[in-house]
Amino acid sequence: MLTIKEIAELVSGEVIGDENLTISGAAPIRDAGPTEITLADDPRYASKLAASAALAVILPAEFPACDKTCVVVADVHAAFARLVQHFCPPTRGAVRGISPLASVSLSARIGPDCIIEPYAVIGDHVELAAGVHVGAGVVIEPGCRIGSRTRLFPRCVLYRDTVVGADCRIHAGAVLGADGFGYVTRQGQHHLSAQLGRVVIEDSVEVGANSTIDRGTYNDTVIGMGTKIDNLVMIAHNCRLGKHNLICSQVGIAGSCRTGDYVVMGGQVGIGDHVDIGDQATLGAQSGVMNNIPAKSVYLGSPALPIKDQMRNWAVVGKIAEWYHKWKDMLRRIERLEQVLQEEQTRPTAAQAAAPATTQPAPMSDRRVA
Amino acid sequence: MLTIKEIAELVSGEVIGDENLTISGAAPIRDAGPTEITLADDPRYASKLAASAALAVILPAEFPACDKTCVVVADVHAAFARLVQHFCPPTRGAVRGISPLASVSLSARIGPDCIIEPYAVIGDHVELAAGVHVGAGVVIEPGCRIGSRTRLFPRCVLYRDTVVGADCRIHAGAVLGADGFGYVTRQGQHHLSAQLGRVVIEDSVEVGANSTIDRGTYNDTVIGMGTKIDNLVMIAHNCRLGKHNLICSQVGIAGSCRTGDYVVMGGQVGIGDHVDIGDQATLGAQSGVMNNIPAKSVYLGSPALPIKDQMRNWAVVGKIAEWYHKWKDMLRRIERLEQVLQEEQTRPTAAQAAAPATTQPAPMSDRRVA
Amino acid sequence: MLTIKEIAELVSGEVIGDENLTISGAAPIRDAGPTEITLADDPRYASKLAASAALAVILPAEFPACDKTCVVVADVHAAFARLVQHFCPPTRGAVRGISPLASVSLSARIGPDCIIEPYAVIGDHVELAAGVHVGAGVVIEPGCRIGSRTRLFPRCVLYRDTVVGADCRIHAGAVLGADGFGYVTRQGQHHLSAQLGRVVIEDSVEVGANSTIDRGTYNDTVIGMGTKIDNLVMIAHNCRLGKHNLICSQVGIAGSCRTGDYVVMGGQVGIGDHVDIGDQATLGAQSGVMNNIPAKSVYLGSPALPIKDQMRNWAVVGKIAEWYHKWKDMLRRIERLEQVLQEEQTRPTAAQAAAPATTQPAPMSDRRVA
Repeated sequence: MLTIKEIAELVSGEVIGDENLTISGAAPIRDAGPTEITLADDPRYASKLAASAALAVILPAEFPACDKTCVVVADVHAAFARLVQHFCPPTRGAVRGISPLASVSLSARIGPDCIIEPYAVIGDHVELAAGVHVGAGVVIEPGCRIGSRTRLFPRCVLYRDTVVGADCRIHAGAVLGADGFGYVTRQGQHHLSAQLGRVVIEDSVEVGANSTIDRGTYNDTVIGMGTKIDNLVMIAHNCRLGKHNLICSQVGIAGSCRTGDYVVMGGQVGIGDHVDIGDQATLGAQSGVMNNIPAKSVYLGSPALPIKDQMRNWAVVGKIAEWYHKWKDMLRRIERLEQVLQEEQTRPTAAQAAAPATTQPAPMSDRRVA
Repeated sequence: MLTIKEIAELVSGEVIGDENLTISGAAPIRDAGPTEITLADDPRYASKLAASAALAVILPAEFPACDKTCVVVADVHAAFARLVQHFCPPTRGAVRGISPLASVSLSARIGPDCIIEPYAVIGDHVELAAGVHVGAGVVIEPGCRIGSRTRLFPRCVLYRDTVVGADCRIHAGAVLGADGFGYVTRQGQHHLSAQLGRVVIEDSVEVGANSTIDRGTYNDTVIGMGTKIDNLVMIAHNCRLGKHNLICSQVGIAGSCRTGDYVVMGGQVGIGDHVDIGDQATLGAQSGVMNNIPAKSVYLGSPALPIKDQMRNWAVVGKIAEWYHKWKDMLRRIERLEQVLQEEQTRPTAAQAAAPATTQPAPMSDRRVA
Repeated sequence: MLTIKEIAELVSGEVIGDENLTISGAAPIRDAGPTEITLADDPRYASKLAASAALAVILPAEFPACDKTCVVVADVHAAFARLVQHFCPPTRGAVRGISPLASVSLSARIGPDCIIEPYAVIGDHVELAAGVHVGAGVVIEPGCRIGSRTRLFPRCVLYRDTVVGADCRIHAGAVLGADGFGYVTRQGQHHLSAQLGRVVIEDSVEVGANSTIDRGTYNDTVIGMGTKIDNLVMIAHNCRLGKHNLICSQVGIAGSCRTGDYVVMGGQVGIGDHVDIGDQATLGAQSGVMNNIPAKSVYLGSPALPIKDQMRNWAVVGKIAEWYHKWKDMLRRIERLEQVLQEEQTRPTAAQAAAPATTQPAPMSDRRVA
């Protein structure tokens, strides 16, 4: 329990409202209860905030006036994170140093301040820079090199000669450097192609849980600095991702693709092999890409099209069953028009009509084609 | 080898036919050989059963008459499972107690009758209720709590403070509680957002092999009681799944989604962030969902539409290349009609025609556009 | 550093050009620098080769004349792989024999020349044939059988009674034999169906990192000889894959499907349950398949259609927003034509115009059926 006054001190904020209120916890707008504090980081959430049960709220200065007691701060998320941690402190475990239950090769070079948890395997000639944290059960095969402060979460696997930069986070179950899926078929049998490249992960990269990045055929598969990769993503052999990409969950990138910098891919995107994606391009979720994508463009759909075109096409396809009936009706009406006109043409012309008429045209209803 | 008589005794069934037949094994309709017994659980398989090589069959009472020797039982699947186990008994291994090869923190609380297999890691302050079975190489980080009789299969990973209820099955390689994929971009760098929530799995939940469920930003990611999740599924941070959902393989659910109870998702469904799925809604395989889905509805396709509309649209799209030619033909015919009519209009009117004609209209065939 | 002459000796090739050039490395066309050698395996890369910075090139005999110094060989890829290994020799680790850090059941039968790395778990009654290599942290549950020379990469998991043939490669994190996703719902609860079948992998099969293959309900899930499966693939219970299939990354195959021999599936394909795919059929990336696919056919799209039809449909759908405007225009023009014609019909006909009008035909609009 904290008073608003105590909260304001904790997060260096300014109170607007009753500083004696007592707060029991911190939760997002949708979940906060009547004795909790919430946060709102953008004025467009003003109506959601008004509807929230929360007793108080952490706000940025630019937020419009609000009925609830407010604590105004410079960085809403930093302040709120501090509060959440106050109310729900994470359990601390005491891992440090090299567990006697880990298997560390005598030829491995382990930098200062490394943590190696139980059942991790560090192969021959592996190099860990300072402050690397190797989780329980991680396997680092011979010849790998890991940069400073990088964290390998439990049970990730680095195949032979994989290179990971500094300040990376490789989550549980991720597999870096498995064989590329390349085969040559001879006499009805598929033979694995060469697997001589490595996986090279530059600095500040994050790889999500159970994602896989395959090694290159002759050259390396490379993930550029600052790129973030979500869970269950597949990046195939020979790919070269640029810097600061954001690759959402379950994306699959086939062999030998390249991406520029600041590329964004939504979930479940699939990219065919040898495709280049330009700088700052965005691919919507579930896009299927078979051709190069220009820089700064936004594509969507499978096959992918520029988002404007795709949205327009989808709008039409969404009512195409209606149009189907209209087309059939249009066809019928065109046929009727043709028939009427043809009959008109067989009517006596004006010149002939000057003479007495002998036949009357059949009534319209008889001439209709169903 | 068993006689039909022995089989009937084993499964408490009633024989129709020759109880002295000798049976060598049990297999499904499509696979059963001429000395084997099969099963049929539904009258609509009567023709498949007639075509099967099986010598005999386990049937429910409501099944129509059948040429083969039958053993009629109350619960076809329970009876058949018993037979399969008789013919192919699973190998029994002798795991019980806590392996001396596991790493169990002194501060962990281990309930009675727990099994902990080799190389499992149980972190500080972890609590295992009675009868929990922790498979080989499982990693349970500090602060996790596991309910009674839950089974964690080999090599699954529970990040810090994850909560799993009673009677759950978490399959091999599943990762619960890794970081959510949320970033704030400042000065061209993506900074990981707070990861202060947990993963909370309620009772009787199953999570498939290599699936991943990310922890919440401030609040918990929650999987409701009785929900079953297949392999390679991704459930992102802050999601709250209801009770008794069935989530098939390779589904991806983005951040902050909610589902009601008894929701069903086919394989490879993708759901965008902040989407709500109503009770008992069904999403067909490969659906892409960007908007809320009402309760009890059935949606399909990407972007998803109500199944009736989608099937109708797909039917039209499936023959759209044909229609493309029809549209071009229609356009041509409309143009021709317009031309003819225009020429008609330039013909003398009836009134003018009373005077002697001076020009003849060109014959129709000359005026047509190919 | 090697001279071209030394390279030619190393790969048994014939030099065309300057055999005294000094080469610093080997890299693919796109990456090779001005002191490196590259390769070209097909004449259609002649222009890319000409544009490459590479100083020299490994070529097959049938390649057209080329400006660069060439080393002509019989097998381009074997020769190039040899060179890459010369310039970048992989790190060698010293694993052999059975690690004292592994847990091997006393009832397991281990063939000659097996390697078992640290923290692997070999359960009761497991059989390893000669030369099996079990990576670090692999879990082999009781009753499994592994054929000669098969390699299990780190941290893959084989559930109880799984059978793997000879010369297979099962990559890191793969899970063979987890429960099938089959439930019977009684009184609002989903009950797991029987899990009595096994996973049976025939000879020379490769399974990619983090892929999952579920065990059968009553019978086995079977992967045919020589079939290659990429990363993050899901193969559900009771499936039977034929021989020499190529299954790309993130494919999902639902329960009880069968494939013939030499079937190829692109990335992210999804197949519904009980579907049969004929011999040599090909499914394009992201296809969604709900019905049987005939042998030797090529299907694409979701729902999948024969590739020719699908490409034609996609071409039309790709410009359907344009057509939407045309349809609206066509409708308008048809209406206008109808109106004009109606007006024509209400004009006195030629015959009537000559004589005094007695009756008027009913207006067009009254006679039309909506």
